Amino acid sequence: MQIIVLAGGEGKRMWPVQTDKCLIPFLGKPLLYHNLKQIKENIEAAEFIIISSPQVKDEASKIAQGLGLNFQIAVQNEPKGMADALLSAKGLIEGEVLVVNAEDILDPKIFKAILETDGDVVVPGLQVKKYFPGGYIENVKGQNSKVKSIVEKPGEGNEPSDLVKLVADYFQDGKELVDYLQRVETTKDDQYEAVLDQMIKDGLDIKYVKYEGVWVPLKYPWHILDISAHFLSKIGQQVSSEAKISEKAIIEGNVFIEEGVKVFEGAVIKGPCYIGKNCIVGNNSMIRESILEEGCVTGFNSDITRSYIGPNSWFHTNYIGDSVLEGDFGMGSGAVLANLRLDNKTVMVGEDHLDTGRHKLGLVAGKGVRVGVNASTMPGVRVGANSLIGPGVVLRKDLKENKKITIKEESFEIADYENSHTSYEQFREEIK
Amino acid sequence: MQIIVLAGGEGKRMWPVQTDKCLIPFLGKPLLYHNLKQIKENIEAAEFIIISSPQVKDEASKIAQGLGLNFQIAVQNEPKGMADALLSAKGLIEGEVLVVNAEDILDPKIFKAILETDGDVVVPGLQVKKYFPGGYIENVKGQNSKVKSIVEKPGEGNEPSDLVKLVADYFQDGKELVDYLQRVETTKDDQYEAVLDQMIKDGLDIKYVKYEGVWVPLKYPWHILDISAHFLSKIGQQVSSEAKISEKAIIEGNVFIEEGVKVFEGAVIKGPCYIGKNCIVGNNSMIRESILEEGCVTGFNSDITRSYIGPNSWFHTNYIGDSVLEGDFGMGSGAVLANLRLDNKTVMVGEDHLDTGRHKLGLVAGKGVRVGVNASTMPGVRVGANSLIGPGVVLRKDLKENKKITIKEESFEIADYENSHTSYEQFREEIK
Amino acid sequence: MQIIVLAGGEGKRMWPVQTDKCLIPFLGKPLLYHNLKQIKENIEAAEFIIISSPQVKDEASKIAQGLGLNFQIAVQNEPKGMADALLSAKGLIEGEVLVVNAEDILDPKIFKAILETDGDVVVPGLQVKKYFPGGYIENVKGQNSKVKSIVEKPGEGNEPSDLVKLVADYFQDGKELVDYLQRVETTKDDQYEAVLDQMIKDGLDIKYVKYEGVWVPLKYPWHILDISAHFLSKIGQQVSSEAKISEKAIIEGNVFIEEGVKVFEGAVIKGPCYIGKNCIVGNNSMIRESILEEGCVTGFNSDITRSYIGPNSWFHTNYIGDSVLEGDFGMGSGAVLANLRLDNKTVMVGEDHLDTGRHKLGLVAGKGVRVGVNASTMPGVRVGANSLIGPGVVLRKDLKENKKITIKEESFEIADYENSHTSYEQFREEIK
Repeated sequence: MQIIVLAGGEGKRMWPVQTDKCLIPFLGKPLLYHNLKQIKENIEAAEFIIISSPQVKDEASKIAQGLGLNFQIAVQNEPKGMADALLSAKGLIEGEVLVVNAEDILDPKIFKAILETDGDVVVPGLQVKKYFPGGYIENVKGQNSKVKSIVEKPGEGNEPSDLVKLVADYFQDGKELVDYLQRVETTKDDQYEAVLDQMIKDGLDIKYVKYEGVWVPLKYPWHILDISAHFLSKIGQQVSSEAKISEKAIIEGNVFIEEGVKVFEGAVIKGPCYIGKNCIVGNNSMIRESILEEGCVTGFNSDITRSYIGPNSWFHTNYIGDSVLEGDFGMGSGAVLANLRLDNKTVMVGEDHLDTGRHKLGLVAGKGVRVGVNASTMPGVRVGANSLIGPGVVLRKDLKENKKITIKEESFEIADYENSHTSYEQFREEIK
Repeated sequence: MQIIVLAGGEGKRMWPVQTDKCLIPFLGKPLLYHNLKQIKENIEAAEFIIISSPQVKDEASKIAQGLGLNFQIAVQNEPKGMADALLSAKGLIEGEVLVVNAEDILDPKIFKAILETDGDVVVPGLQVKKYFPGGYIENVKGQNSKVKSIVEKPGEGNEPSDLVKLVADYFQDGKELVDYLQRVETTKDDQYEAVLDQMIKDGLDIKYVKYEGVWVPLKYPWHILDISAHFLSKIGQQVSSEAKISEKAIIEGNVFIEEGVKVFEGAVIKGPCYIGKNCIVGNNSMIRESILEEGCVTGFNSDITRSYIGPNSWFHTNYIGDSVLEGDFGMGSGAVLANLRLDNKTVMVGEDHLDTGRHKLGLVAGKGVRVGVNASTMPGVRVGANSLIGPGVVLRKDLKENKKITIKEESFEIADYENSHTSYEQFREEIK
Repeated sequence: MQIIVLAGGEGKRMWPVQTDKCLIPFLGKPLLYHNLKQIKENIEAAEFIIISSPQVKDEASKIAQGLGLNFQIAVQNEPKGMADALLSAKGLIEGEVLVVNAEDILDPKIFKAILETDGDVVVPGLQVKKYFPGGYIENVKGQNSKVKSIVEKPGEGNEPSDLVKLVADYFQDGKELVDYLQRVETTKDDQYEAVLDQMIKDGLDIKYVKYEGVWVPLKYPWHILDISAHFLSKIGQQVSSEAKISEKAIIEGNVFIEEGVKVFEGAVIKGPCYIGKNCIVGNNSMIRESILEEGCVTGFNSDITRSYIGPNSWFHTNYIGDSVLEGDFGMGSGAVLANLRLDNKTVMVGEDHLDTGRHKLGLVAGKGVRVGVNASTMPGVRVGANSLIGPGVVLRKDLKENKKITIKEESFEIADYENSHTSYEQFREEIK
């Protein structure tokens, strides 16, 4: 059997994060690595076909090689949907295939359940408790596991079932799938859905498997926080023997510390947390429920909470709450990434006020962003790669790539001053 | 004997604090509770007449009931002075009465001393060392304890004695007092003082008792700090068995910790301090000589010194020095309430530069005030209830209720930026 | 033999530092003290002639007396170069003389080596590895230790040798030196150099001694950091028995703590560090590789790194990196002295962008400077004595003496605000 891994996704909505979704590192490894490894460990004797974008190809190959997979790579030159992606690999597809998304977090049990179900096509149906804007499975009356149709975004109240179709789709005849993909004409947005419709019309036996496990989508950059939480929920306490932890630091709960890490006196790490290779957790810093990818430095007295911190980021006496920092992020002393609206509304992003549904969301920053001393960013603000938020600035709106925002010089005024010079004693008294 | 407790005071000068003076909580109980309890414990078999404003009535009743007092409530509908207050209760007044202010902090010994002194009227005279703008007692020559007159605000150097009349006034005949209050005509501001004058003229035997004990007035909101200091001077070290104190926290001196409190690692509490029910003192926070009423949360790394923090306030990496926060106060990370003028002058408040006489005074905030991340408030600034001080703002003047102050968007400018991207190594080196 | 100590230097380039170079204290003693003491300990039976400016005279006398030196003081009334300085002492000069700069840090071995070398004049030649804009020694061919000429600033690539002439100049006949100084006419900037030229022409035997030891010049105020590093490299761990160090503080490495110092819980001092008399290191403060002269107070939670902190300075939750603070410096909570350009260029100072060659340089402040809460200063900014940097200000340019810079009131705007008041629970949840 062949596993077709769709790793060519574009992800405009992921802005300002530019790393291809499936290459974003979690716990020191790209998301693709985690998903390939999971499939390898749960499905026997599989051959992989990885369909990737041109820019992801080399990295994907390396990952698959590292895992010792039997694989081939197909390249989709432009991100033109799922059908087009599959057709990029048409020459490689032979018999039974299982189609999965490279970035979907799923419980591996679903793969087994799909493969154990008889049918020409078998798809998973995620049981949802409230309306989700996806494709709903309508089943054939009296036949619990047979799909009658897939209803795209029916609107709340019109759902034909409580099952949303995910992607972990089994086709008994891959060549037939390719044939359909080439043949079916549609006006629909997605040719792949049209193919499924046509197969149903043609009387193929299309089954679904109810799925009640975890599913963490990655559509917007703040979903990286959900995926982080998922990976953090899986770790135990494990400290590398090559890490150097001060006896005066506190490590509590499920904290995974990689080699080369230094944790200084007074630092507190409250699990679940992942501290990547060669990270430095400075004196009195506190890290809670966060991922720090490799090479990060917290500096003195930083407070990092529920955040995803990409590689080689550095801090110095900062608050970082519920933030997504892609990597190579630098922050001057006293800067704060605010994560909670003082009016307690859910955080909305961008000019079109997209509701993230989160009460807490800090900064979302692309790679190489710099934040000056005593600067502040407001909840849900996005900053493009390599931009600079100047010292003392309060950033309330998104900032594009390669920009800097500073306080105008005219905001300040200079006057003569006579210093009476005596506050020293008052201050000294305070500390006695 | 009847104790008449004047609890109807208006307190315009208490702005922005809106809680009626006698209901401001100290150590978890309203000021009225403390004073009623003290009188109950020091004067036998007393009946209480509590004269309150309409809005205080219910709460005052509850407090008196809770103390198991024998009491009646009279309502003064408008705050029209002490004589009017007493007349609100005229139907209840019968024989001997002792008139006290609900919010005055006095040593209970004075009540005993007053009641042990013979006279138609007996009043306390506070011995002062420097001029105080109150009513001074002129005594009858050769008769040390007999009052000749009360001289209102004589001006420095013109004092007839060093005794300022306080309120803990005994009248042998309460009905006669009521009669006087109804009968005496005056052009003076205060009818009550006119009554005392008339009684003297009419030859009643008016005595005074010299008082050298504590007296803490509550006229301006920063006096709450004086009252806090008074209550803190009375407490010992006591930690509720229902509190959870990290072994890595430091509790030093007279610190009273109520049930439900959590104190995290690295936190330092240096007494005298009161930490109310369910407060959370976060990692590395330091609290000195302060009251935190119930439900407060210091967050990570806050520094709270000589302050009064009303219920349900929250902080996060803040400095709070010599501040009065009425309650439900919220403060973003990095915000600072400055308490010391850099020119070392005493702190003055408002447009009329009222001198508080304090070298250190931070913010005075009504209920529900919010302070954004990295904002700063200048010494002695007052902020009305429910107002917001935006992130990064430097607040130098009073702010009314229900206002927000923010930095204008035009204060910032955006330009293109090319990031050379190499400061990481420099920074990393620093922490090695 | 007479040691002539040149202590009259002007030092315009030292702005905003006003203390005469040789009186700047290091490890509790003026630089002059250190240098005189070193000479005393290394050259036997010397008599000192200290040539000072009028304002330094008294202090220099006191220092010399304190060291029990045999000395005379000569006053140079205006800073008009080295020849003029020497001529100010012409009546005192008798026989053999050794001329040294009061502020030059040199290894004492060089004095011995100079004095052990035969010659009418003997000068030191510092071996340099890269071009330095000083006077280079050209030696007589075949005679390794004989000076042919001194070539001033030859330009890179044109150096006649790798030896830069320093000042530790021996003259066998001091009277002859005086004679030359009075006699030689020159159009050169420096008469002293012209004298050396003339002596060579006249056939005197002028030798040099190669010097490979330490030499720390003090030309610009940031050189104070280099001198600090030099002194710190000499200290061991030594804690006065009259200091009070909390058991919960961490002292690591070579830390010299004077009497009267208090170090509070959670403070970290990582050597090499010097903590002067009566300093207070507050809770959770961290000090690394720095000098704090006497009477300084770090307050709560300050982070002081690689800095020189002059006497009686005080801090409160601040970052001070690579900064030179002359003394009597005060800093409000949350203020930051940034030390690293986010673009990683070397720090340049002033309007003429003088390159300091340092990747890290914070603030350079004269005496009595005050910095308001949450203010920020940019790398390499200089602030004149007694000036004030207002709260929240971002200081990007030098500020003269006796000035204050503040944020304009018009930078803020006030609007109505309705507080929904519910973020307390969200916040509380965070800390659970």
